[in-house]
Amino acid sequence: MYGYGDIKLFAGSGSLDLAQEISDYLSVPLSGYDLVEFPNENLFIRLHGSVRGQDVYLVQSMPPPVHRNLMELLIMIDTLKRDSAGRITAVVPYMAYARSDKKDQPRVPITARLVSDMIEVAGADRYITIDLHAGQIQGFFSIPGDVLTAFHLLSDYILEKDLKDAVVATADLGFAKKGRNFAAKLSTPLAFVEKRRRGDDPRAVATTLIGNVKDKDVVIVDDEVLTAGSVSEAVDIVLEQGARDVYLSFTHGLLVPPAVERLGARPIKEIVTTNTVPLPAEKRLPNMTVLSVAPLLGEVILRAHEGRSVGELFNE
Amino acid sequence: MYGYGDIKLFAGSGSLDLAQEISDYLSVPLSGYDLVEFPNENLFIRLHGSVRGQDVYLVQSMPPPVHRNLMELLIMIDTLKRDSAGRITAVVPYMAYARSDKKDQPRVPITARLVSDMIEVAGADRYITIDLHAGQIQGFFSIPGDVLTAFHLLSDYILEKDLKDAVVATADLGFAKKGRNFAAKLSTPLAFVEKRRRGDDPRAVATTLIGNVKDKDVVIVDDEVLTAGSVSEAVDIVLEQGARDVYLSFTHGLLVPPAVERLGARPIKEIVTTNTVPLPAEKRLPNMTVLSVAPLLGEVILRAHEGRSVGELFNE
Amino acid sequence: MYGYGDIKLFAGSGSLDLAQEISDYLSVPLSGYDLVEFPNENLFIRLHGSVRGQDVYLVQSMPPPVHRNLMELLIMIDTLKRDSAGRITAVVPYMAYARSDKKDQPRVPITARLVSDMIEVAGADRYITIDLHAGQIQGFFSIPGDVLTAFHLLSDYILEKDLKDAVVATADLGFAKKGRNFAAKLSTPLAFVEKRRRGDDPRAVATTLIGNVKDKDVVIVDDEVLTAGSVSEAVDIVLEQGARDVYLSFTHGLLVPPAVERLGARPIKEIVTTNTVPLPAEKRLPNMTVLSVAPLLGEVILRAHEGRSVGELFNE
Amino acid sequence: MYGYGDIKLFAGSGSLDLAQEISDYLSVPLSGYDLVEFPNENLFIRLHGSVRGQDVYLVQSMPPPVHRNLMELLIMIDTLKRDSAGRITAVVPYMAYARSDKKDQPRVPITARLVSDMIEVAGADRYITIDLHAGQIQGFFSIPGDVLTAFHLLSDYILEKDLKDAVVATADLGFAKKGRNFAAKLSTPLAFVEKRRRGDDPRAVATTLIGNVKDKDVVIVDDEVLTAGSVSEAVDIVLEQGARDVYLSFTHGLLVPPAVERLGARPIKEIVTTNTVPLPAEKRLPNMTVLSVAPLLGEVILRAHEGRSVGELFNE
Amino acid sequence: MYGYGDIKLFAGSGSLDLAQEISDYLSVPLSGYDLVEFPNENLFIRLHGSVRGQDVYLVQSMPPPVHRNLMELLIMIDTLKRDSAGRITAVVPYMAYARSDKKDQPRVPITARLVSDMIEVAGADRYITIDLHAGQIQGFFSIPGDVLTAFHLLSDYILEKDLKDAVVATADLGFAKKGRNFAAKLSTPLAFVEKRRRGDDPRAVATTLIGNVKDKDVVIVDDEVLTAGSVSEAVDIVLEQGARDVYLSFTHGLLVPPAVERLGARPIKEIVTTNTVPLPAEKRLPNMTVLSVAPLLGEVILRAHEGRSVGELFNE
Amino acid sequence: MYGYGDIKLFAGSGSLDLAQEISDYLSVPLSGYDLVEFPNENLFIRLHGSVRGQDVYLVQSMPPPVHRNLMELLIMIDTLKRDSAGRITAVVPYMAYARSDKKDQPRVPITARLVSDMIEVAGADRYITIDLHAGQIQGFFSIPGDVLTAFHLLSDYILEKDLKDAVVATADLGFAKKGRNFAAKLSTPLAFVEKRRRGDDPRAVATTLIGNVKDKDVVIVDDEVLTAGSVSEAVDIVLEQGARDVYLSFTHGLLVPPAVERLGARPIKEIVTTNTVPLPAEKRLPNMTVLSVAPLLGEVILRAHEGRSVGELFNE
Repeated sequence: MYGYGDIKLFAGSGSLDLAQEISDYLSVPLSGYDLVEFPNENLFIRLHGSVRGQDVYLVQSMPPPVHRNLMELLIMIDTLKRDSAGRITAVVPYMAYARSDKKDQPRVPITARLVSDMIEVAGADRYITIDLHAGQIQGFFSIPGDVLTAFHLLSDYILEKDLKDAVVATADLGFAKKGRNFAAKLSTPLAFVEKRRRGDDPRAVATTLIGNVKDKDVVIVDDEVLTAGSVSEAVDIVLEQGARDVYLSFTHGLLVPPAVERLGARPIKEIVTTNTVPLPAEKRLPNMTVLSVAPLLGEVILRAHEGRSVGELFNE
Repeated sequence: MYGYGDIKLFAGSGSLDLAQEISDYLSVPLSGYDLVEFPNENLFIRLHGSVRGQDVYLVQSMPPPVHRNLMELLIMIDTLKRDSAGRITAVVPYMAYARSDKKDQPRVPITARLVSDMIEVAGADRYITIDLHAGQIQGFFSIPGDVLTAFHLLSDYILEKDLKDAVVATADLGFAKKGRNFAAKLSTPLAFVEKRRRGDDPRAVATTLIGNVKDKDVVIVDDEVLTAGSVSEAVDIVLEQGARDVYLSFTHGLLVPPAVERLGARPIKEIVTTNTVPLPAEKRLPNMTVLSVAPLLGEVILRAHEGRSVGELFNE
Repeated sequence: MYGYGDIKLFAGSGSLDLAQEISDYLSVPLSGYDLVEFPNENLFIRLHGSVRGQDVYLVQSMPPPVHRNLMELLIMIDTLKRDSAGRITAVVPYMAYARSDKKDQPRVPITARLVSDMIEVAGADRYITIDLHAGQIQGFFSIPGDVLTAFHLLSDYILEKDLKDAVVATADLGFAKKGRNFAAKLSTPLAFVEKRRRGDDPRAVATTLIGNVKDKDVVIVDDEVLTAGSVSEAVDIVLEQGARDVYLSFTHGLLVPPAVERLGARPIKEIVTTNTVPLPAEKRLPNMTVLSVAPLLGEVILRAHEGRSVGELFNE
Repeated sequence: MYGYGDIKLFAGSGSLDLAQEISDYLSVPLSGYDLVEFPNENLFIRLHGSVRGQDVYLVQSMPPPVHRNLMELLIMIDTLKRDSAGRITAVVPYMAYARSDKKDQPRVPITARLVSDMIEVAGADRYITIDLHAGQIQGFFSIPGDVLTAFHLLSDYILEKDLKDAVVATADLGFAKKGRNFAAKLSTPLAFVEKRRRGDDPRAVATTLIGNVKDKDVVIVDDEVLTAGSVSEAVDIVLEQGARDVYLSFTHGLLVPPAVERLGARPIKEIVTTNTVPLPAEKRLPNMTVLSVAPLLGEVILRAHEGRSVGELFNE
Repeated sequence: MYGYGDIKLFAGSGSLDLAQEISDYLSVPLSGYDLVEFPNENLFIRLHGSVRGQDVYLVQSMPPPVHRNLMELLIMIDTLKRDSAGRITAVVPYMAYARSDKKDQPRVPITARLVSDMIEVAGADRYITIDLHAGQIQGFFSIPGDVLTAFHLLSDYILEKDLKDAVVATADLGFAKKGRNFAAKLSTPLAFVEKRRRGDDPRAVATTLIGNVKDKDVVIVDDEVLTAGSVSEAVDIVLEQGARDVYLSFTHGLLVPPAVERLGARPIKEIVTTNTVPLPAEKRLPNMTVLSVAPLLGEVILRAHEGRSVGELFNE
Repeated sequence: MYGYGDIKLFAGSGSLDLAQEISDYLSVPLSGYDLVEFPNENLFIRLHGSVRGQDVYLVQSMPPPVHRNLMELLIMIDTLKRDSAGRITAVVPYMAYARSDKKDQPRVPITARLVSDMIEVAGADRYITIDLHAGQIQGFFSIPGDVLTAFHLLSDYILEKDLKDAVVATADLGFAKKGRNFAAKLSTPLAFVEKRRRGDDPRAVATTLIGNVKDKDVVIVDDEVLTAGSVSEAVDIVLEQGARDVYLSFTHGLLVPPAVERLGARPIKEIVTTNTVPLPAEKRLPNMTVLSVAPLLGEVILRAHEGRSVGELFNE
């Protein structure tokens, strides 16, 4: 037995299906609550049962509607805290605003820090998340957390395809280092798509491929795909440069319009992603494989609850 | 000269027109900034000029879209803080979630406190707001603030009508004490509409009028009108009980559907409200008078900036 | 077994008898400590035994001497914290300064928030209290708490009298909403006593009864009775208006002079209150019934300790 | 001109006369406020005028009634903060609870730290105090402060007497180091009164004089005199050991009963103290000289306001 | 005149020469203080004059001895705070521990966040630093700061050489994005050195060049050079691949052994760096150009003091 | 079973041997971790195994290299916190900077408070330490802690010698009160060495003995011996005044040069100290007895872990 009571699992609006899968993995039922939206859009929550002294895990991702999902997360944490939960863990598979993580120009916010502060001030004791856009965001929190990665899930899947003569390419130079790890895992060379502004026109961008992809299978990797603008350009340029099959691998499939159109219009062999954000049927292209992060999250919740190592999970 | 630099005035999306009126009142131009909404709904802000060491007032009300408006407020505060503003005052004419101010049942949140904490953690030094649903919410903040009231504006307007033989009535017992103040200002008697559940059916509600309105002009007062359910019932019951003319007076005109239909369908002599939230043309009924809070806010901003008394404004 | 060790129960000077009753209810002995008052009035506390890792409940109400009782509460919390208690719950049946909960005029304090902050900064992890003057005060705390009510205790007692043709009346418009709940429980109509200043003389107050009490039994309800000024006026006015029997029901019986004289001089059928503050013999009028909150507090302590629902206690 | 507005000076109940003297020194009038004590002892404060953006100094010592004085200090700070004072300095000539500054036995509080935290959480920006019982208490505050000393005032006064063949003696070993400084200033030898328990009886105490006082004038020095128990014993023992004239010098003259009786009954040549706490006529023995700290506090307030060095005042 | 008093400039042990240059730039003399190191290595600071109400800038970089320099910074901040400085800005040209900015494996610290927290808890109001290893570290601070860059200084210097047919190369994939900016400024292509572990031996690393450098001048860019291991390998590999002249450009020249040996042994045309950390004569190779960041820091201090835009400095 | 998991014991660089002794006492093995010092002196820590949910005790004293030891302590706490330890107790047998505990002159720091804040902000939940220079330092922490004393260990050892006609003397007036306790335990008289500056020359110091030591065994007591300057002078003066045997007793034997030379050169009968800081062979004089604090720390860790009284250990 452990000091924080029993596991209580809650599903937020942004993770209904995923939370159900985690519930199945853990054989722990989802706890019930009422979520009311008043006509002025204000949200109201009422738990069906008490969480007093329990070890609560609240699964809530932050796809659109982003601000409503974020506020729902925070209100739920406040509710749990004021009901005297023993420990509250915010399980946020996809953390919004993670790209607003630094001031790379003057007079702009660092919204990712703001979001971290909001989660802390609401009363979360811990958090669990997957593939933060920048690892440094973990340092925005002063509460402890488990920042997991879908890297093993995705790279193992690609590895099983046993591609011959492949290259890993990144669509964004900020992903260069993680791209290197992907390439190392697959034992392939590495290539980069570089984008650079031309003159003063912000829309005039020159795209260059650094590295060699000719006659190779190319696995384009990224952390998050939004409108699929960058990855589509990456697909185009590697094909121009003579690539054979093109694969796409990324963790967070936001896929807001016109992402599905863009991806659907290109001869991509396979798109591999996960369910950190809900992927409704209309976003699921025929060549798309969605790997579930539920076993990963379920196992980590179990280990966190029992006070066992999470790092071990990854042989670390 | 004063220690916080010059006034800088910013208009948030929830208060564009009102902020412009305040700008006119103060003869201080609105400071420019870019507000970008990315395809994943994430907001991004970039100030056009520096606010380093300045005395910044950010006007942002919280009508729907509530969560976006709240997040915009917070991100703007973070931006101003990180640009080393001398002092940041959040001017929030209408504070959302103010009705979620207590736990009147178990296992529910106190979201108004959460919102206060969010504004503080984002970095606001002060706040200015109007007619909080409960005065106690001021105690949710540990930063100082000016909680203003439109009471004088509204009651002076009614007073000028010089109604004979009038009664003030409240549509909600929680507003009883403020209703009393209204009645005292107008030197009229007071009446109350009481609602009470019948049995276990939450929709079966008995409505009673306590007090006498027969052959009197009735001024129904409230702080906020949302769907106009309660005030419409109040109008109906005072008319049933023989009231002569019926007036409606409230500060915050959210007026979400079917408020306009409900109010438009009833023989109300005049509806008096303010512009703490934007009132687009389609919400402005022919019998509606909208008083502007801009002079009030402008004057308070000026006095706060110059270190002069705000209470004096109200002869207090 | 539960994560916070065993229950340790301490009785503060403001709750000696009540704490003993709770001790009896729980079959947990009161823990001993020395409380020394030095000649300069400074208090000093020394626990007889260690509370290291234990689940400590400190019962301390805040009747006069208010400031000494408050300081004793805070020093005790500091002592418990520095002795490494596992969890510290401040059980404050009557919270002083609860009426100083908002700034209804300029340049005044919000002392209730200050008191909340003091309890938090001293090191309390949780608090339990009864019938806060305003429910919003719960939002002044960022630590979780259980705000209980003597409403069920008091209304059940009145209900058993099976009064025919009764009315519930409030002596203060700020209590209107809670008065409504009382009336609903008793299935009676509702009436209000309204007070209003006449002219500029603060002592010239006009008192009016809104609603009908003629030939009815009247139950006057309030949360706290101090000098009994308001409730005495209420008794007088309902009798003037032809009421039959008059009952008085309130949670906190501070009853400072001349409360006992005022109440004793009036033909009140029965006064029903509780022991949230000590009621010495000289305050106990012959027609006064004092219901004990000890079983309520004892049961809540037990449930808090065992991590069970408190809301269930009230079928909520 | 300076960034915090004008000096505003407030006198708390514990320092009415002293604050008036400071007001005279600074030629700054005392600001007015109402202090109401309700029948339930709860205090309420209302400032007569706004302190918005001003540099406020609140003079409030903490003699008995200690807890009321402390609470009045805190409520006043909250009032000033919520009225948007530019900067709030708590001027506390005598800090109560300063002897509760460490855990020299298990299961006791450190109340002096608690008091510091309370002053900070209420909203003070700075503090000024005199002769803290232990210098380390300054480290209990995280806000900056000026800890002044009456040492120069007192020792200069004694020095002017031009005593021949004198000795400085301390009544308490905890004051040994400061006694050394006193002796050094007067260029005299040093002696100590040592007290030690005999056996298990806490009242059986052996008192010894360490050092030589025969045929010498003895100046007994301490920081605070409460019931005058220790200093009376010190007077007795130095007289027994052949001392000539005996002088007594201390900063804080609490002089609670039976201090006046004890001191009056002994042949003390002169008692020198200050007005950090009020000394009403009945406490002023004929051989007592009360030096005023008002010029010291006034000068420090002036320098703090103008951003000039305070250390310079002491040639440091 | 501005609200924070006058500029006071202090030079910490890690920035003696640089602070003197800034002092010259600003025509503001360095303020004096004693820094004592006791035999137990404990540091002690005593300011020569008061900083009460002044706008203080403390210049202290963090080269080795790192921990002594960090502690000196913190103690100085505490000293300034407790002397009631008006505003304290920590000017830290090189921030140590910046590479410990994320948990890229389990059970490791995020020391950069810890350092940020230490600077905040000591009492700094703002900070100024140059070229943080990761921009996200700015989000570790909740206080505002100016994170400057030597990018313009270094790239302008290279630009003036008017290199024909050049390539920019990065020695570390984590610097890929900043390398792209460098290349864009110089209008050159981009290349990357990729390092990848071979098997389980952590010392067995494969180094690859991605991109084309043959017959081109290569500018290798990085943020910090420590032992010069990576950049030396980069020099070697670009020379192997046929590069013409090789330039090296980096901001922070820690150059701990054997950096000087490594760099001296290679045919590098020119090494361009800055004085964010002291570069004593023995580290200054004949082909090394050290650009001073003093004008940049001086100008930013001036603008921060006067409340003017810093972003403007960079035409942003 | 107890709420914080199992004991995990870590040995910091400043307490390797002592931690091993504690490990033996508790029969709990030391947990492993890698401590890397990079060429830029930055430290890096990686735990060998998870501490998730465990009750962690980190033993780390702060002898020189003081700043590295302090930083190692803080980084380790951060590592443990971010690995989700259940509870983190910093066991710091000797706390550095404890003499910098007050501002006894203007414009100096209170570094002991800074160090306390750093330990708290890093994430420690509790601390254990021995013989703080001033007991008040415990009040610098807001987290609970156990401040132990080697007094019983040292005085019991001296008591067993059964000295006849002995005197206890302190070398520092700040230790007068603790010297008295020592004398009381040994039932001996007390004497003091007083030092006083002569004129303006800071090196011209007059040393006086207050009390009588002629023909007596003298036990000179102190808390910490650094360069042994003061205690050597004390030895000299008591010998001059005719003392018989001289003993030296102190808790913390820093013994930095020329302490060993000074002590070795004097005819001291026996030096008694403890191992709160490592005492390598070259510091161990032939007449030195080093008592181990390991059983004391081990027992306290055990009791803290099991939630049992620590005060009992000392019959308190």
